[in-house]
Amino acid sequence: MTAGVLANDNKIVFLVLDGLGDVPHPGHSFLTPLEAAIKPNIDRLAVESGVLGRTIPVGIGITPGSGPGHLSLFGYDPLRYEIGRGILEVLGLDMDMAAGDIAARGNFATVQDGIVVDRRAGRIETSRTRRLCEEMSRSIPEIDGVKVVIKAGVSHRFGIIFKGEGLSDELEDADPHKEHMPFVWAAPKSPTAERTARIINAYMERVMDLLKAEGAANGVLLRGFSQSPDIPPFPEKYRMDSLAVATYPMYRGLAKVLGMKVEKEPADYGEMISILREHYDRYQFFFMHIKETDVAGEDGNFEEKTRAIEIVDRIVPDIWALAPRVLVVTGDHSTPCMLKGHSWHPVPLLIATNMGETDAKPFHERNCLKGSLGTIYAKELMTLALAYGSKLDKYGA
Amino acid sequence: MTAGVLANDNKIVFLVLDGLGDVPHPGHSFLTPLEAAIKPNIDRLAVESGVLGRTIPVGIGITPGSGPGHLSLFGYDPLRYEIGRGILEVLGLDMDMAAGDIAARGNFATVQDGIVVDRRAGRIETSRTRRLCEEMSRSIPEIDGVKVVIKAGVSHRFGIIFKGEGLSDELEDADPHKEHMPFVWAAPKSPTAERTARIINAYMERVMDLLKAEGAANGVLLRGFSQSPDIPPFPEKYRMDSLAVATYPMYRGLAKVLGMKVEKEPADYGEMISILREHYDRYQFFFMHIKETDVAGEDGNFEEKTRAIEIVDRIVPDIWALAPRVLVVTGDHSTPCMLKGHSWHPVPLLIATNMGETDAKPFHERNCLKGSLGTIYAKELMTLALAYGSKLDKYGA
Repeated sequence: MTAGVLANDNKIVFLVLDGLGDVPHPGHSFLTPLEAAIKPNIDRLAVESGVLGRTIPVGIGITPGSGPGHLSLFGYDPLRYEIGRGILEVLGLDMDMAAGDIAARGNFATVQDGIVVDRRAGRIETSRTRRLCEEMSRSIPEIDGVKVVIKAGVSHRFGIIFKGEGLSDELEDADPHKEHMPFVWAAPKSPTAERTARIINAYMERVMDLLKAEGAANGVLLRGFSQSPDIPPFPEKYRMDSLAVATYPMYRGLAKVLGMKVEKEPADYGEMISILREHYDRYQFFFMHIKETDVAGEDGNFEEKTRAIEIVDRIVPDIWALAPRVLVVTGDHSTPCMLKGHSWHPVPLLIATNMGETDAKPFHERNCLKGSLGTIYAKELMTLALAYGSKLDKYGA
Repeated sequence: MTAGVLANDNKIVFLVLDGLGDVPHPGHSFLTPLEAAIKPNIDRLAVESGVLGRTIPVGIGITPGSGPGHLSLFGYDPLRYEIGRGILEVLGLDMDMAAGDIAARGNFATVQDGIVVDRRAGRIETSRTRRLCEEMSRSIPEIDGVKVVIKAGVSHRFGIIFKGEGLSDELEDADPHKEHMPFVWAAPKSPTAERTARIINAYMERVMDLLKAEGAANGVLLRGFSQSPDIPPFPEKYRMDSLAVATYPMYRGLAKVLGMKVEKEPADYGEMISILREHYDRYQFFFMHIKETDVAGEDGNFEEKTRAIEIVDRIVPDIWALAPRVLVVTGDHSTPCMLKGHSWHPVPLLIATNMGETDAKPFHERNCLKGSLGTIYAKELMTLALAYGSKLDKYGA
């Protein structure tokens, strides 16, 4: 951004439907879920008060993960800033990261004579993983003055955070990534990380000693070592007190990493709206995250994705009734049902404002392609939202 | 630009309608002024000989001032080059800048016991400002070998130029920017500017001594100290002798800063056409600037902006009759009536050529959105104009 950001109380709401974008489906009259969905509220908003366009999350042809997808939406260059895999894992488990902490994804694994014979310990049950994590927490709460926090995930998975002074995440994974390969220790990528590697390896040694009678789950693998990125906090960058409202912990966590606040953890859309209403006066920016569209896309379930959009449509009037200056409806990436996964396709974008400008068209991929906003990089969306929010100075005399 | 520029006598005319771009107006059947205007000549040109597109003046969501708006149109990266506030002020007063000169905007102000109690001296009358400026010119024509040129503007405003060797514009404003704050002197931002600051402050001291009996107008404030940017001259960059034809002094001045010539100062569109005709053979590039569209937009006057376009339409056949190789019709930025000010919205672009290529559509925002030129950064327009003007070498073998 090149123009100064003005602090004012104009409200900007981002309603992010995860994996929203899709492609025409041959099994559904070549419609997309967004075209097939009966969504009178979003369409009225678009026709009366909205302009349309598309965003490219990272680059043409590039399929983003959730980290880069959201970083771009919030105006951070996803090629410059990175949110590590370990961080996403612990955020997804609702664990709290502080500056300097090292997060990693953990697996219980089967190790025989120094060879990793099963990277998932026979996919042990979640209850057993819980018990093992509790034992590890109790027996080895810290090592060399570094506190270790672990939390069980699903099946053989767990999240782990090392909390201490002077740690570095310049580490190779302690995971051979393939089975029937020798077990590997965390290795420093640079001299700065030598001490951290020693501490983590000492921890792993003690854990494996603790687990030695556990049969299939007698080993642990750690990967994706990462610290919180050194990233300018969102509320300062844009001069907006910012609130994240999301049912999934990972997205609340992502928002927290960027300096947004989380007031409550909503269980459903109804609670999301209550939280928005209750705290509307105290914030200027609101990030509302909807996961169900992405889940349905990943499942390749066209009807379910269509229904997910229809359900979101019902809460849109509650948001618009609060009279935000700007309401952005978009996704962090596309998750086409036909591909059953994230994709590189541009993402439909709707910017609704109270100023009367409109493309006068319902909201879906085909109209977004012809929308007046054009196809822009997602990282430029925040600048546009600030412009519509009257939060940007003129550039130059 | 990546390809070599060829010198030839093919003519390129830029007809720049300031603030041309607009958004659909709810009070006018959701039309824009460009859609509502009856402009048979421009539309015939577009349909028979024109291709359409849109330009982004500086960046997505970025609202440009006149300086960056025009720099981009002329192919200069507005993030790299800057035309200072002081320069725009003195150019607007039709004062001449030379390389090394320092320009600033001046206010007469009321200063009591070192406090600026009124930054505009009670908005004194223009006639009084004229008298005071004349007195200052006569009494203090120079200081420390630096010549001082001043010219009255409207009400309490004046433009001032310091002419001498080794001056620097690395100066903080001699203006507290708020009332009831202590008067401040020009302060150097770097050691290079220390001498310039001393000279300017000595000048201000003498001026205030001169004005001490003037009551409300007993002080002066100076801001926006700036030198001509170190910018490659337009005629050399593009190998075209270049003529600016504009009724408003600021735009003639801007063109002069870029090395374009000004033959005469036209009072109206009729004179603009005469100047164009008279000097058509001696130049290759012509910058014709129309201010009225922007003025109407700033006033939020839809009918007036529509009429301004209709009036410009009448001179288009006179330009086209000269058979330029390329006639570009566009704006330096959008000034939507609904916003009553400059905005970030992409600007409609028409390139008419004598080669027969056409999108076969009338010229307005909606058609430009779908035009074959696409949406491009304004700084890329000159390259496109040169290409249509057969003035660019092939790039690579």
